[in-house]
Amino acid sequence: MAASEFDRDIAVSKDGEAAYAAELAPGWVVGGGINGGYLVAVVGNALRQHLPGKPDPIVVSASYCSASEPGPAQIRVDVRRDGGSLTTATAELWQGAELRLTALATYGDLASLHASSDPRERVVAVPPDLPPRERCVPGSMAPEQMRRTSPMLDRFEMLFHPDQIGWALGQPSGTGTISAWYRLADGRAPDTLSLLQVLDALPPATFDLGMPGWAPTLELTCHVRHRPSPGWLAVTHSTSHLSGGMFEEDCEVWDSAGRLVAQARQLARVPRHR
Amino acid sequence: MAASEFDRDIAVSKDGEAAYAAELAPGWVVGGGINGGYLVAVVGNALRQHLPGKPDPIVVSASYCSASEPGPAQIRVDVRRDGGSLTTATAELWQGAELRLTALATYGDLASLHASSDPRERVVAVPPDLPPRERCVPGSMAPEQMRRTSPMLDRFEMLFHPDQIGWALGQPSGTGTISAWYRLADGRAPDTLSLLQVLDALPPATFDLGMPGWAPTLELTCHVRHRPSPGWLAVTHSTSHLSGGMFEEDCEVWDSAGRLVAQARQLARVPRHR
Repeated sequence: MAASEFDRDIAVSKDGEAAYAAELAPGWVVGGGINGGYLVAVVGNALRQHLPGKPDPIVVSASYCSASEPGPAQIRVDVRRDGGSLTTATAELWQGAELRLTALATYGDLASLHASSDPRERVVAVPPDLPPRERCVPGSMAPEQMRRTSPMLDRFEMLFHPDQIGWALGQPSGTGTISAWYRLADGRAPDTLSLLQVLDALPPATFDLGMPGWAPTLELTCHVRHRPSPGWLAVTHSTSHLSGGMFEEDCEVWDSAGRLVAQARQLARVPRHR
Repeated sequence: MAASEFDRDIAVSKDGEAAYAAELAPGWVVGGGINGGYLVAVVGNALRQHLPGKPDPIVVSASYCSASEPGPAQIRVDVRRDGGSLTTATAELWQGAELRLTALATYGDLASLHASSDPRERVVAVPPDLPPRERCVPGSMAPEQMRRTSPMLDRFEMLFHPDQIGWALGQPSGTGTISAWYRLADGRAPDTLSLLQVLDALPPATFDLGMPGWAPTLELTCHVRHRPSPGWLAVTHSTSHLSGGMFEEDCEVWDSAGRLVAQARQLARVPRHR
């Protein structure tokens, strides 16, 4: 009841023994396609529903096979191994006869996994150096034309580091890093499913390298490490190796408690020359 | 003919429409199991054979389902999408009725992909700062007991950074980084298949954090970016976020031409307390 916009948009319903029906929402269109992180969250929701007692994606790897479109879709799930505390499954997103995405996932219950895990911690990663939100630049200031072709920008608030949005003004910094504050537009608190979207929400790091245009993802692997605390998330994208027409993009998501809650790496194609 | 040891050990033969037979070699045992990188290379070889004209793994994500044993195995391949220059397939490694590993892979021909790709390059990653090989510490100096339980150590030459092997003497540096020179024992030149092994060849970065013991990999994603030049490879493992009983481990492989040829990230469990 009274579901948030995000929960409505990722909703799935049982559609056979190991299949789920979804309706890909037009609101997640960005440029020419549907956001890849949103697609993983829809597939992730079907997996959550299929794996009772294991609500949390721990690892999800997704390969993008063809461009999704708003409208009906089916997710087919196949459990490959139920190992007690962790289950490994494949999941595919279909639209009619077209395979959109194929994924390999491991699910579990992070609360019970953490309760029984080795207590040692060692975190040398540091959160992005984001100024207070009132000094950041809201994505809602994006040019009208971009907003029209990318309704996804209305699904969340994104407040960019003011030193890392030169690309929006034709002056990319060249460092290959973009950071921003993020929360869903209606304030829905983050959870381990919504993190799958966040891990592919920022513009590609290539924007900051003076390469505008959306960068098609070949493959995206998400690690969810902790259940996030409520509140804003700090998100960063960076790339260190653009070569041979491809680049890797690393994403980190930090929660309001200052904890690294999720990481992703994707391999994407360099955007086409304009 | 006159195949190298590595090529003999990863050999597969057709065993039905979409299946390949392999013999997992006892020489790749390390501690209690078979090296995960070797297993991915065996599966990768079946994929290469199954996908004519696409000899190169571009991305391979593998989930480890149960512990493999030396002896017969079967690899089952399922092409999910043939996209022209790239093909996406799943592959599973079975031993009898036991699923050992399930993988999602994208293959192509790196030579032709690169010939038609965007020529821009931007590499800010830097190779590991390894001293000349004669100043490094060979893995063959490992204690007799470790060598007996880990015959894998005889499959390649590994020359460790002298400042990063304190862990072998009970004095880990605590930085979470281990680097080494690598080449196959019989000098077989690296190629895009052998890189899959190299990406999981070094000891876990947790050794350098004072946590001895092998760290079970949940998932390993490999990106192969370039065909390697002949000669020694420089390899580095590092982790920045050990928490909740798990850690991510990033691997980079640089070739003799000074090029970053492959990257991997894995999610692994913290080794059990002794």
